[in-house]
Amino acid sequence: MIHAGEQTLRDLMGRTGLDAIALVPGANFRHVYGKNFHQNERSLVVLMLRDGPNLAVVPHLEAASFDMIGFDGAVFHWRDNDGANAAFDALSGHCSPQRIGVEGQTMRVLEHHGLKRAFPDSEIVDMHEAISSSLRLHKTDADIALLRQAIAISEDALARTLDEVRIGQSETEIESLLLKNLFGAGAEGLSFDPIVAAADNSYRPHAKARPDYAVQAGDALLLDFGAEFRGYKADITRTVFVGHCPDEARSVYDTVLSANAAGREAARPGVSAHDIDDCVLGVLEASPYREFIRTKTGHGLGRDVHEDPYIMRGNHQTLEPGMVFTIEPGLYLPDRFGVRIEDDVVITDDGAASLTSFAREVTIIC
Amino acid sequence: MIHAGEQTLRDLMGRTGLDAIALVPGANFRHVYGKNFHQNERSLVVLMLRDGPNLAVVPHLEAASFDMIGFDGAVFHWRDNDGANAAFDALSGHCSPQRIGVEGQTMRVLEHHGLKRAFPDSEIVDMHEAISSSLRLHKTDADIALLRQAIAISEDALARTLDEVRIGQSETEIESLLLKNLFGAGAEGLSFDPIVAAADNSYRPHAKARPDYAVQAGDALLLDFGAEFRGYKADITRTVFVGHCPDEARSVYDTVLSANAAGREAARPGVSAHDIDDCVLGVLEASPYREFIRTKTGHGLGRDVHEDPYIMRGNHQTLEPGMVFTIEPGLYLPDRFGVRIEDDVVITDDGAASLTSFAREVTIIC
Repeated sequence: MIHAGEQTLRDLMGRTGLDAIALVPGANFRHVYGKNFHQNERSLVVLMLRDGPNLAVVPHLEAASFDMIGFDGAVFHWRDNDGANAAFDALSGHCSPQRIGVEGQTMRVLEHHGLKRAFPDSEIVDMHEAISSSLRLHKTDADIALLRQAIAISEDALARTLDEVRIGQSETEIESLLLKNLFGAGAEGLSFDPIVAAADNSYRPHAKARPDYAVQAGDALLLDFGAEFRGYKADITRTVFVGHCPDEARSVYDTVLSANAAGREAARPGVSAHDIDDCVLGVLEASPYREFIRTKTGHGLGRDVHEDPYIMRGNHQTLEPGMVFTIEPGLYLPDRFGVRIEDDVVITDDGAASLTSFAREVTIIC
Repeated sequence: MIHAGEQTLRDLMGRTGLDAIALVPGANFRHVYGKNFHQNERSLVVLMLRDGPNLAVVPHLEAASFDMIGFDGAVFHWRDNDGANAAFDALSGHCSPQRIGVEGQTMRVLEHHGLKRAFPDSEIVDMHEAISSSLRLHKTDADIALLRQAIAISEDALARTLDEVRIGQSETEIESLLLKNLFGAGAEGLSFDPIVAAADNSYRPHAKARPDYAVQAGDALLLDFGAEFRGYKADITRTVFVGHCPDEARSVYDTVLSANAAGREAARPGVSAHDIDDCVLGVLEASPYREFIRTKTGHGLGRDVHEDPYIMRGNHQTLEPGMVFTIEPGLYLPDRFGVRIEDDVVITDDGAASLTSFAREVTIIC
């Protein structure tokens, strides 16, 4: 069968002067073929030719699963005892592409070397964003419905977790509660390793939970996480306060919340990613806390938790209906605390809608 | 500070004629630096020189987290708005390695292209297995203790899940139960996406759970999964039967169990990976089911769920105390059912011990 995504990628090859595109397991592979595979020590690569058939290098162990995707092309299997070299060599008997586009954030050196072995004179071009965007930048109603389910699971788990946090628990204990609640609520996976960070740890944008810090009254507690559901990945951050919210923290929080609200209001078709970031950062820069800005406003999300459009000054991409991205301003006071409030937003025909709806006002727990 | 792993890798460079080794976030990075980072659209690379200092390309967003690892070397930060090119270019002002070893199963084309940009004339060599094994092939008692905890969590979750399975549940419902129980038991992550497959789906070694198949009496139900705990990854498979076990399935099961037992008994210092696979496959090949063999016996595990030693005919690596690997024979009857029984085994001074202890005899649930 011809998969719709294969035609989309052949059109991309035509527009960009590529002779071939290689896909490896991941978000794009799942989008095109409706199924995914593990990336492990075994190489699995699909090679689509602009003016020729599809080819694939497939571990023998995955043959029965690969048969399920309805792949129309030649498949070269390989067994663990033999290694993948002969299967890659076989590709070169069927084509000689000069320029091969690959997913640079997903394909590994292992597969890169396999392609270079087959086609030593070819140029391997990182087309990650073009491949991903041509397939998945504009979400359909069905995409949005699945993303909403992933978000509902995430918000359900967040509510349960905040009910269960107690003064004296460690960050890792709270992370365990969150994980239990995510999978209890129906998560099929995690969008990424959750961030659960209190007090001074919350100032690190990608903090790791500590087993040896017990949360105490007056702490900020930042939770940044998302459930995966049917391959769609939620991403939400809320920062709450334990016992009470100190005055300065409340002032920082209100500043971040104003920036978050400004971003959600500015989002609509026709404005650019740059415009949104400029608006959000503008609020933070006009506050007394401008020195504590560390990040841009956000990133696209869907089957990948980071994808186009990146909501960043200098990115003049125009926002269009169906694009989905985060708005996640934050302020990070070194060695003291951080506040981030992150929502997932979809551009609609006449504005934007927040897919996340968890309470944004200052929340005191315990 | 000097990290012990850095010296181990410099010794490896000396032995193998490498001028440098580049590490990216993953199992080896965590082993050397005690901390890990996300692999996302941002490149983070540490470059160690055999005869020179350490260098690193680090996203500005991760700077505060990177500061925690006690890295002794020059760090080149880069911001999202600028991209990573200038940081990679800066590397070339400090060194000109001819041969750079990389982790081919972990490093992506994104970082490969960054290194080629900095060092266009260098050779980038896939040293994944040599890097991983020099650091982590022989497990310490502390490694084993953490792996035992990951396994205890996994076996606890399996017991709870088998208690909760009911006739009529779908494979995805059972997978959700397993995930909830894993995180309820203390898992910090998953070794890989669990395999929960019944009946004809269980014949695919890497099956994906189906939402539209309800388990029924007489089905084989295969569960292959593992909890991650403190960066160590368990991996266990059990195949149970729903309601009752048909005679042929029992005969297939007993054959696989004999092969599993033979492998565990054969494991000891001085025998080779080849010998173990030969022993295990020998049992299967001597049975009436030899045509249903699809896989080798197993793979090493620890911080990676697939690593050396691979338990495979043709791999004449000698087993030594501290090596940990799976013994996971299986038989897969196309479009009917599959049986796999997988244990995690450590080589001891005078034999081997199974770290997994979940019941292996035929188990009927519901």
